[in-house]
Amino acid sequence: MEGFFNCHSTSNGLESSSYLCVMLSISQRGHDMPASPIRKLVPFAEAAKKKGTKVYHLNIGQPDIETPKACLDAVKQSNLSVLEYSHSAGNESYRKKLVQYYAKNNIQVTAEEIIITTGGSEAILFGFMACLDAGDEVIIPEPFYANYNGFAIQADVKVVPIGSSIETGFSLPPIEEFEKAITSKTKAIVVCNPNNPTGYLYSAAEMNTLKEIVIKHNLFLFADEAYREFCYEGTHTSAMHLKGAEQHVVLMDTISKRYSACGGRIGAFITKNKEVLNAAMKFAQARLSPPYYAQLLGEAAVDLPDNYFDTTKQEYKLRRDTIVKRLNQMEGVFCPNPGGAFYAMARLPIDDCDRFCQWLLESFTHEGATIMLAPATGFYSTPGLGKNEVRLAYVLNTEAIHKAMDCLESALKQYPGRTL
Amino acid sequence: MEGFFNCHSTSNGLESSSYLCVMLSISQRGHDMPASPIRKLVPFAEAAKKKGTKVYHLNIGQPDIETPKACLDAVKQSNLSVLEYSHSAGNESYRKKLVQYYAKNNIQVTAEEIIITTGGSEAILFGFMACLDAGDEVIIPEPFYANYNGFAIQADVKVVPIGSSIETGFSLPPIEEFEKAITSKTKAIVVCNPNNPTGYLYSAAEMNTLKEIVIKHNLFLFADEAYREFCYEGTHTSAMHLKGAEQHVVLMDTISKRYSACGGRIGAFITKNKEVLNAAMKFAQARLSPPYYAQLLGEAAVDLPDNYFDTTKQEYKLRRDTIVKRLNQMEGVFCPNPGGAFYAMARLPIDDCDRFCQWLLESFTHEGATIMLAPATGFYSTPGLGKNEVRLAYVLNTEAIHKAMDCLESALKQYPGRTL
Repeated sequence: MEGFFNCHSTSNGLESSSYLCVMLSISQRGHDMPASPIRKLVPFAEAAKKKGTKVYHLNIGQPDIETPKACLDAVKQSNLSVLEYSHSAGNESYRKKLVQYYAKNNIQVTAEEIIITTGGSEAILFGFMACLDAGDEVIIPEPFYANYNGFAIQADVKVVPIGSSIETGFSLPPIEEFEKAITSKTKAIVVCNPNNPTGYLYSAAEMNTLKEIVIKHNLFLFADEAYREFCYEGTHTSAMHLKGAEQHVVLMDTISKRYSACGGRIGAFITKNKEVLNAAMKFAQARLSPPYYAQLLGEAAVDLPDNYFDTTKQEYKLRRDTIVKRLNQMEGVFCPNPGGAFYAMARLPIDDCDRFCQWLLESFTHEGATIMLAPATGFYSTPGLGKNEVRLAYVLNTEAIHKAMDCLESALKQYPGRTL
Repeated sequence: MEGFFNCHSTSNGLESSSYLCVMLSISQRGHDMPASPIRKLVPFAEAAKKKGTKVYHLNIGQPDIETPKACLDAVKQSNLSVLEYSHSAGNESYRKKLVQYYAKNNIQVTAEEIIITTGGSEAILFGFMACLDAGDEVIIPEPFYANYNGFAIQADVKVVPIGSSIETGFSLPPIEEFEKAITSKTKAIVVCNPNNPTGYLYSAAEMNTLKEIVIKHNLFLFADEAYREFCYEGTHTSAMHLKGAEQHVVLMDTISKRYSACGGRIGAFITKNKEVLNAAMKFAQARLSPPYYAQLLGEAAVDLPDNYFDTTKQEYKLRRDTIVKRLNQMEGVFCPNPGGAFYAMARLPIDDCDRFCQWLLESFTHEGATIMLAPATGFYSTPGLGKNEVRLAYVLNTEAIHKAMDCLESALKQYPGRTL
């Protein structure tokens, strides 16, 4: 390895050492980038399965709901001879169709205000890149979707968490908490509504509080509304409904959960702020176009019957009711009732959720099965928080949920690090 | 617009002014991000078409070659019930299949050394993000693929161009030019082979020169080999063929041009450097997964008959021969013979290529038609270079190329800013 013993230059942002001098080094941000907190348990799950253990996956937001046949058929019936780039903002026909979808949700946007993205992920990245510079701060109520951290590192932006608490079901922190966190570097607030990981559905009053803050302090409001349709109590207030905040709001959307189409990688970046839209468009042009096929799927989805979500919502609500009831029946467990999405956060009588989740996969079975959960620590930015919490995605049917809860109940009695 | 008249904080990296104080401002990088040099002429082309003018598009690398039917059928015959996320590194079956593809190209990689990306674009972004930090420098022979600039801005990396010249057909600059450009901040060199926009095919000797430089100076070698199959003179030397440079090389690949599947958005990030691979994998996890459908297409493509590229190459070679001959027959025009890809750079007797390309669309027709070209200035990083050059993508059949060249020949006689 000839190259390893030459060292003309090393400028890696780390303290220099002889090791670094002879090694080609990756970037500091490559070091800093967090590994997925959800996926790091995968090797343990794989090992458990190899031993013949049935693993109930409550760890990831991969719905088991079937993708609507009409959507899959739109792709299967595609009639292309050349799979060309689409417009960098996405197919015009799809953007026009989406205008109808948003109108049904009382969101008035034009096709020109929409950029189709590669999943909601890219919409988040475009928002951070277009609005924030290195060193800028973005306030996010924690616990929050862990990948915001990854996009913040890519954009060299500082995430400033403010606490929401399991006791209040993770409601919006009081306005004073936001104001305490705002500095001259603060440029934006992220709100995920309904929330991943907490399932919390923000009320109209809470959304109005956010509106007042972003207007008063001249901030962007990044709204992640991936779970818009999945509200079980009350109604959804979109950030796009906030009158007077139009220039502040950037909607980061996705069809992944809505139509159980996670693999399609289709989302949307939507704003009425023309300067932001134009900046985002330049990032969109650099990556040429979003994926073509799943745009067909997304376009077909807008024509699904109006009652399409009824069945799905009913099913998720049943699962939610089942899992929340079972959790709260367990000794020492507390699970607030989530108003939306398909996640529940539960406080367990355990010392350390990372250790517990690994132990479940490595050392525990109940009737030949175990469960995989997401340790809540991965969703908190403040070190030490969430150590006795886990996130459960209710993406399995109620029968499987019951079996998974039997596992959890049994596990909590046997876990060496139990705190009861 | 209540929010516009509040101003708690502005930290936008620009000089402060009353305008900035009352406006929510986008990021500096949003300002700095270049608009696509190719796409900025689009409104003029649209206006020309509205007037009834036929526009021959030689401006973008969108092949007209049909996507192989077997590839399209793989998508149409997909049999899914849930369109799930694929693995963050891409479907294992596809990565295993790709191992065969690379082996046919004398590139020995394992499935674990491959991360499937959302187009070659994402592979470039992952490479920059995983290997380079803010302020680091990357050397790229210019003219170069304009979107490298966009990814450099996203990664806050400085592009240091070194000149290649139309007189030598854009061959690799001498080793001294590289060494003059290397500073303590230099972390990488980008090579696009065969080259976009020049069509230049780097020789084995030139690739070995690059190998020596990256080893001697401990740099990464980012290799964009999107056009690997399209070599008309000599053979392709992949950066992955460079013995001893294995830890330096990151291959940024894509199926877009290879199988005329640009809209699929499937590429690959490949390296034998485990640290780089692990870092890139964290960026891959943050965006969850690459698009599912076109992975099926890519997987089917590996099973195309070995002679699949023969027809396509023959067609492109014929077009190249046609366009280069026609160009060099025009008075004052010089077009070196490109060895690969489907681009040619030509020097024209004009004052300003941006003005000329716009004039072609706005003020010129020949027998009811005109042509759209890519001004070369967009491919140069050094201001002022390339002002009398254009890039021509030979993505039209020879009949259309002849008509387009008739247009150009006529236009060069009429253009008010001609320099002959």
